[in-house]
Amino acid sequence: MPSTLEFFFDYSSPYSYLASTQVQALGERNGAIVKWRPFLLGAVFKATGNVPPSSNLAKAQYLLKDLSDWIRHYRLPELVWPPSFPMNSVLADRLGLVAEEQGKLIEYTRETFHAAFAKGQDISEKEVLYGVLVTLGMEPEAALARATSQEIKDRLRANTDEAVARGAFGAPTFFVGEDMYVGNDRLPFVERALTVAGRATG
Amino acid sequence: MPSTLEFFFDYSSPYSYLASTQVQALGERNGAIVKWRPFLLGAVFKATGNVPPSSNLAKAQYLLKDLSDWIRHYRLPELVWPPSFPMNSVLADRLGLVAEEQGKLIEYTRETFHAAFAKGQDISEKEVLYGVLVTLGMEPEAALARATSQEIKDRLRANTDEAVARGAFGAPTFFVGEDMYVGNDRLPFVERALTVAGRATG
Repeated sequence: MPSTLEFFFDYSSPYSYLASTQVQALGERNGAIVKWRPFLLGAVFKATGNVPPSSNLAKAQYLLKDLSDWIRHYRLPELVWPPSFPMNSVLADRLGLVAEEQGKLIEYTRETFHAAFAKGQDISEKEVLYGVLVTLGMEPEAALARATSQEIKDRLRANTDEAVARGAFGAPTFFVGEDMYVGNDRLPFVERALTVAGRATG
Repeated sequence: MPSTLEFFFDYSSPYSYLASTQVQALGERNGAIVKWRPFLLGAVFKATGNVPPSSNLAKAQYLLKDLSDWIRHYRLPELVWPPSFPMNSVLADRLGLVAEEQGKLIEYTRETFHAAFAKGQDISEKEVLYGVLVTLGMEPEAALARATSQEIKDRLRANTDEAVARGAFGAPTFFVGEDMYVGNDRLPFVERALTVAGRATG
């Protein structure tokens, strides 16, 4: 049985963006199934009393430098910082779950992160997300209506609550079984865990 | 001219401990001089408004797991957690500067971190540091007297103030020139910076 890598992320999180560009290939080369699980980072912070790094001035200054280091390392498009940060990501997250219903979560995630951190667009704005949906060939009006349905709202809340209950306090958060790893910079440890899991079951 | 890697660290910081086991070899294989610079992390937190990861419950729980992951990765002795954390490190830091005067900073640092995180001793206690000094063949009474001299106090404060002025907000903090890197997990980026610096001047 292939092992599973759960990837909890939020569209407002630049380190989630970084991880999102690596995680699928990482899973595939280790024979693991990657479960992409959008959650609401703001609610994770509220539940755990944690704060985003940008809430501290010295940390915020380093954040931009560090992100640029990672972007160069991963050879991603130059960082273009969004007009407001951290932005409200609840609609983007819910639309991720709608995209998932249509088998388009990975593509939606790529486009939405690209809009936020490579084009510097404000993904809290419905118009920006509308553009993403059009690009993906999703029916925008229907997707936006579905995003505000109780079912989708509940599903996002359930992902968030579950992650917190399992120990999450930030994003991205990875699980291999109940083995938790926090942060894009822990992907090498995630890979090691998958290798071990693969040997155990393979 | 060889490039210089500055390594700001504090004896209460487990991630400084991790980095201390790697940084000298990293510098040497890149032809760089490593400047070991003890500073007072508590004062850095106070100056920047930052807080240690252990101040958040969910983070603190992950901290221990993450440290164990690193310890396995670096093949270090099993983590033995000190009786109080974060501990008062001011005397340990000042003694680091005394050891530096005697050309023993690296050995002192190795022994002190080992006492704190592999033996689980309380390095805020003078008796524990006394034992470290004896192990290193340093005159303990004289070293402790020197550690409370105005000159050593001022030197620790100067290291701390300088690091904060240059952007530090936590430990360990590395500088290659004014290029700053924060955290043991950024050592691969530190190494890349040294490689680039080496090419530029070599």
